[in-house]
Amino acid sequence: MNGSTFGNIFKITTWGESHGKAIGVVIDGCPAGLSLCEEDIQKFLNRRKPGQSRYTTKRQEADQVEILSGVFEGKTTGTPISLMVPNTDQRSRDYTEIAESYRPGHADLNYDRKYGFRDYRGGGRSSGRETIGRVAAGAVASKILKELGISLTAYTCAIGPVTIDPRHFDKEEIFRNPLYMPDSQAALRAQECLEQAMKETNSLGGMVECVITGVPAGLGEPVFDKLDATLAKAILSIGAVKGFEIGSGMDAARSTGLENNDGYDTDEQGKPVKITNHSGGITGGISDGAPIIFRAAFKPTPSIAAPQKTINRKGEPMEIRIKGRHDPIIVPRAVVVVESMAALVILDALLGSMTARMDRIKDFFAPLL
Amino acid sequence: MNGSTFGNIFKITTWGESHGKAIGVVIDGCPAGLSLCEEDIQKFLNRRKPGQSRYTTKRQEADQVEILSGVFEGKTTGTPISLMVPNTDQRSRDYTEIAESYRPGHADLNYDRKYGFRDYRGGGRSSGRETIGRVAAGAVASKILKELGISLTAYTCAIGPVTIDPRHFDKEEIFRNPLYMPDSQAALRAQECLEQAMKETNSLGGMVECVITGVPAGLGEPVFDKLDATLAKAILSIGAVKGFEIGSGMDAARSTGLENNDGYDTDEQGKPVKITNHSGGITGGISDGAPIIFRAAFKPTPSIAAPQKTINRKGEPMEIRIKGRHDPIIVPRAVVVVESMAALVILDALLGSMTARMDRIKDFFAPLL
Amino acid sequence: MNGSTFGNIFKITTWGESHGKAIGVVIDGCPAGLSLCEEDIQKFLNRRKPGQSRYTTKRQEADQVEILSGVFEGKTTGTPISLMVPNTDQRSRDYTEIAESYRPGHADLNYDRKYGFRDYRGGGRSSGRETIGRVAAGAVASKILKELGISLTAYTCAIGPVTIDPRHFDKEEIFRNPLYMPDSQAALRAQECLEQAMKETNSLGGMVECVITGVPAGLGEPVFDKLDATLAKAILSIGAVKGFEIGSGMDAARSTGLENNDGYDTDEQGKPVKITNHSGGITGGISDGAPIIFRAAFKPTPSIAAPQKTINRKGEPMEIRIKGRHDPIIVPRAVVVVESMAALVILDALLGSMTARMDRIKDFFAPLL
Amino acid sequence: MNGSTFGNIFKITTWGESHGKAIGVVIDGCPAGLSLCEEDIQKFLNRRKPGQSRYTTKRQEADQVEILSGVFEGKTTGTPISLMVPNTDQRSRDYTEIAESYRPGHADLNYDRKYGFRDYRGGGRSSGRETIGRVAAGAVASKILKELGISLTAYTCAIGPVTIDPRHFDKEEIFRNPLYMPDSQAALRAQECLEQAMKETNSLGGMVECVITGVPAGLGEPVFDKLDATLAKAILSIGAVKGFEIGSGMDAARSTGLENNDGYDTDEQGKPVKITNHSGGITGGISDGAPIIFRAAFKPTPSIAAPQKTINRKGEPMEIRIKGRHDPIIVPRAVVVVESMAALVILDALLGSMTARMDRIKDFFAPLL
Repeated sequence: MNGSTFGNIFKITTWGESHGKAIGVVIDGCPAGLSLCEEDIQKFLNRRKPGQSRYTTKRQEADQVEILSGVFEGKTTGTPISLMVPNTDQRSRDYTEIAESYRPGHADLNYDRKYGFRDYRGGGRSSGRETIGRVAAGAVASKILKELGISLTAYTCAIGPVTIDPRHFDKEEIFRNPLYMPDSQAALRAQECLEQAMKETNSLGGMVECVITGVPAGLGEPVFDKLDATLAKAILSIGAVKGFEIGSGMDAARSTGLENNDGYDTDEQGKPVKITNHSGGITGGISDGAPIIFRAAFKPTPSIAAPQKTINRKGEPMEIRIKGRHDPIIVPRAVVVVESMAALVILDALLGSMTARMDRIKDFFAPLL
Repeated sequence: MNGSTFGNIFKITTWGESHGKAIGVVIDGCPAGLSLCEEDIQKFLNRRKPGQSRYTTKRQEADQVEILSGVFEGKTTGTPISLMVPNTDQRSRDYTEIAESYRPGHADLNYDRKYGFRDYRGGGRSSGRETIGRVAAGAVASKILKELGISLTAYTCAIGPVTIDPRHFDKEEIFRNPLYMPDSQAALRAQECLEQAMKETNSLGGMVECVITGVPAGLGEPVFDKLDATLAKAILSIGAVKGFEIGSGMDAARSTGLENNDGYDTDEQGKPVKITNHSGGITGGISDGAPIIFRAAFKPTPSIAAPQKTINRKGEPMEIRIKGRHDPIIVPRAVVVVESMAALVILDALLGSMTARMDRIKDFFAPLL
Repeated sequence: MNGSTFGNIFKITTWGESHGKAIGVVIDGCPAGLSLCEEDIQKFLNRRKPGQSRYTTKRQEADQVEILSGVFEGKTTGTPISLMVPNTDQRSRDYTEIAESYRPGHADLNYDRKYGFRDYRGGGRSSGRETIGRVAAGAVASKILKELGISLTAYTCAIGPVTIDPRHFDKEEIFRNPLYMPDSQAALRAQECLEQAMKETNSLGGMVECVITGVPAGLGEPVFDKLDATLAKAILSIGAVKGFEIGSGMDAARSTGLENNDGYDTDEQGKPVKITNHSGGITGGISDGAPIIFRAAFKPTPSIAAPQKTINRKGEPMEIRIKGRHDPIIVPRAVVVVESMAALVILDALLGSMTARMDRIKDFFAPLL
Repeated sequence: MNGSTFGNIFKITTWGESHGKAIGVVIDGCPAGLSLCEEDIQKFLNRRKPGQSRYTTKRQEADQVEILSGVFEGKTTGTPISLMVPNTDQRSRDYTEIAESYRPGHADLNYDRKYGFRDYRGGGRSSGRETIGRVAAGAVASKILKELGISLTAYTCAIGPVTIDPRHFDKEEIFRNPLYMPDSQAALRAQECLEQAMKETNSLGGMVECVITGVPAGLGEPVFDKLDATLAKAILSIGAVKGFEIGSGMDAARSTGLENNDGYDTDEQGKPVKITNHSGGITGGISDGAPIIFRAAFKPTPSIAAPQKTINRKGEPMEIRIKGRHDPIIVPRAVVVVESMAALVILDALLGSMTARMDRIKDFFAPLL
């Protein structure tokens, strides 16, 4: 049952392994008439590219995107957009150890059990490189959303024990430090923690938060395709995510109705506004007009050089020390992945909402019939 | 874009409003030859039925299920199973207030904005009664899983400030207290908190945990349809859920690679086993053979009698006190809903895994060709 | 892999067997705000009801529809519409023969091989009664299309050797004769053929044609979801249909490019029009603004009283004479089924077309953002 | 609503325009462990490659396939298989005429109306080159089916007025003449007709027939996803197909029940067999064990050099003569496209049938649990 496709209307299908020829994505259902060039997409890919700081792997990957179809004379045609990123750093290497044994915290053993064997070169399809296709598609979705006045901002809100302080929140700071943290002091403390972890050949986990503004009320479907449910799936589908929460999230479980309910008032234009936003912008699965705010918990990078207990293919216990150039933390490079997945969800819900009401359908078709 | 359908192979479609004629579900894709009777389903429905304790609404709903199709001579036929539960407690009532104003924490205003108007009788489709269809279908899925040796156990693990103590965990206790807590002492303390909240016309949130054993390794798909991503969507699609975590969950963000990785060893039969289970039974989106463990955070019941600020349909500020018979906490009745959604996810992934390998496909068809 | 669901946006799921408690359909994705009552649906169901003439079975089925959900104060709410038709004529009967042997031209043997056993009471799910759900949903789709200026007309165009004469085509005549033929003379000749077939305990096949007007250009998708491809699937999914053709259809294979191409001109308003309509209103899979015209070939009713060779469950050769009250021809009652399936396809394509262009998407959301 | 994806389990997504950089397909859901190399796919592509005879366009397209992902050490890994064919013949050309006017029988005008503009270079997405992706995927599906004992044979059964004579049917002949006709005499007569059409700058239509043997009984779903309905959609989704019929097809409408019903007998092993095969191997939407036989009617190539009436973008009437190197008939190169689409349908139904019965599901999982 496959599972490489995401979305209903703005539908993406990703393909490619970490050490294959290329990684790519096909976007089906992109509206026609959007101005689009490779640079629009490259900007997003550069945010997840390795080698940007000492906290990301030193592997050299150009990650240069190529548009293979769906764009003509600088505009999308409404037909599938095929995007490809060649894998340039496929240096021949000795894979014997990871071919013959199972890395803790990785899917190696599961792949062997599911498929009978696996592409053991660097994780294959379970590699973080798989997210290239998501980010490329997310760049296109974000561009459409931007034209409609919707914008997304994701950032690192915690690394190991260090959490950002809301009082120091500075959106501009996100792109100034290598950790994508909107709090310069927290970023400094987090870097110290990372240095320590690296010294110990260990790794750290962290949290990513995403805020989406300009979302009209009414997106999302009442039951199984609630907007937050779809966001949760999108975010948990990113490797290494172990938790998702929206608005008051896990804290809601410890609060009371009086504390957690968002009362209503009206703004200067007389439009309804919520007094608080414990819902995180989604109530009953449907966007409520307030900013959407959610968080994702990432586990620490499983690939560490410290010795770990495992078994080999014959089932014999052994000790493994994972070599290679691995990020000591997944989070900073995952920020743009979270933002991309969220953009895909919001755009798909937005397009899906167009058929909800007879009056709007009639207005839409009146000039066409 | 609808959204009342869940699952790919074992696919369910729910319908019905809280105060309509009936609530129901159609299961399409149930394998033929399963013994099934109404009692199999009723047992599950009884676990979410109102009126079981003073912590659940006193509304009288028989919630009696009827099998309308798909079962012949006591066995499923492979064709759609239509299940219906009539709404018996539709007492005529004065809905003026909730028709004319917006309840904080509810989807009332969103529905009006999405659809232009709404069924204002008790929440309509956004009511908790919508989960009847999920539980009825979950009962069927659970029965199939049981025949394959897979079992699910969900329970309340926290209510307001009270959390169960793992040292007091007693599976038998779950069905002995009205809160479905596997720790009798925590259950008593939780009841005190609930009494207090009720006195204050307030409500409490809580957490549900679910453990699934007997799941073979290899279920789930590598990318967007990761098993945990699908579980997350299933669980967040339950009204009032604000957070989801699997295995070490949110804590993973604060841990190190050495702490969080699950090393491997072999058991007495020489089969691979994980030394720890921080993954919660799913690694890289694929079941890893260990028990699957996840948690869901529920917000407090939004319907409370205490006065709250809101607006009416004309946009005028007003105060609302929600009358009626509402649960002071959602969690106990939601336990079986969580278990049902999880059963649907696991069964669907199990059936979906049958086509993953050429060798097994050949073995399957050899006697049929 | 189920298969009881049709459509992407206006999505229907049917359930029920011929001799079960009821037959029904759930419509998910119906826009909110459509005026809808049971009579709107009943009118369509009455067109397929048995017992309307001596050429249809004398079984007494009231086929009275009940709306169980999705409509509030006379308008659709945007949530699933559940429609149910109780099976009233479930007289207890001796099913031994069809339980123990396989009727030629029926799916009995296939069901046994696919599912291991079958509901042998009158065809179960493979019965023509399954189309009740389609027609009920088609009535709703047709009502929406009508409000948008799109109308569908299906009729019998051939019965056995008798074909309607285009020169005698009279739309009003369709509802005047029991065969739904738009040519009174052909209808008389067809009735003679049917009398003869009935005398010989035999049955006849026939053709249904459907014309759809008012369809705007631009519906349908370029590749796999071509509008005519989706129509073909919809029509072939009706039991007993063995062929589908659109526009010049099968004759196109025998024509030349010069004959078959539709040239363009402009009408009085300067809008493009096709000079001919060999395409049948769909070119390159996309509606071209001309009326959509297609035909479906139905095989003769397989249930006949004449003796036929078959085998029993033990594999022993035997002769079968099928008793009971069977239509000597399927076509007249299938006319409304064809029209209903076409309405579902056109509506779904219409709703799907709303997201094709950035300019229209921007116009749609401008007042909402 | 996109529409570039086909299949449920063995799911393919095609992309690419006739004059873009490349054409491709992503196969998601291919079972792991299948031996696969580029040559397996190239063999199929060579059958639809232009330039094979004087009846196919003289455009030079190497149509060389490249496997970009999903295959490791010569075997499929279970992850998406990305296949790409570069477009080599993109000679710069003067497209003014087809950019500024609408070719009769083409989708030019529809695309403009649907998307606001179009890729006017040689048809863009509506070009026959789009089928490259289908054939590449069909090659993989056919290889799997072959390993399971299922084989497909498609051929030209009519060109213009010439139809093959069943008495001269010779399977070996199919690959001996440039028209893929299994009757050498008919092939000669058809070539004469084509020469005549070419002299008149005209084109011809024709028919393709496909026979599938070795299909086990029980494939296909009872209602909307009947096996023949899915085949019809697959075949009508090929550009230029105007009609589809299975088994007795259109003739069934003119036959009687006694003539058209397939009686049953048993073979030497005592297994049930049908005495005739008017059903074309599918009864009630489910494969009945007999060979599946269907036919598709193709319209004549719309691109002809003879003068035709049309309009330009300003809506002014004009005359068009389409230059370029066009096939005088679509059918011969479409034979492998029909076969490929049929392979995709059969394989998907086969994989989908694995979850139909509890007894087989239990047998499947017994060794895994």
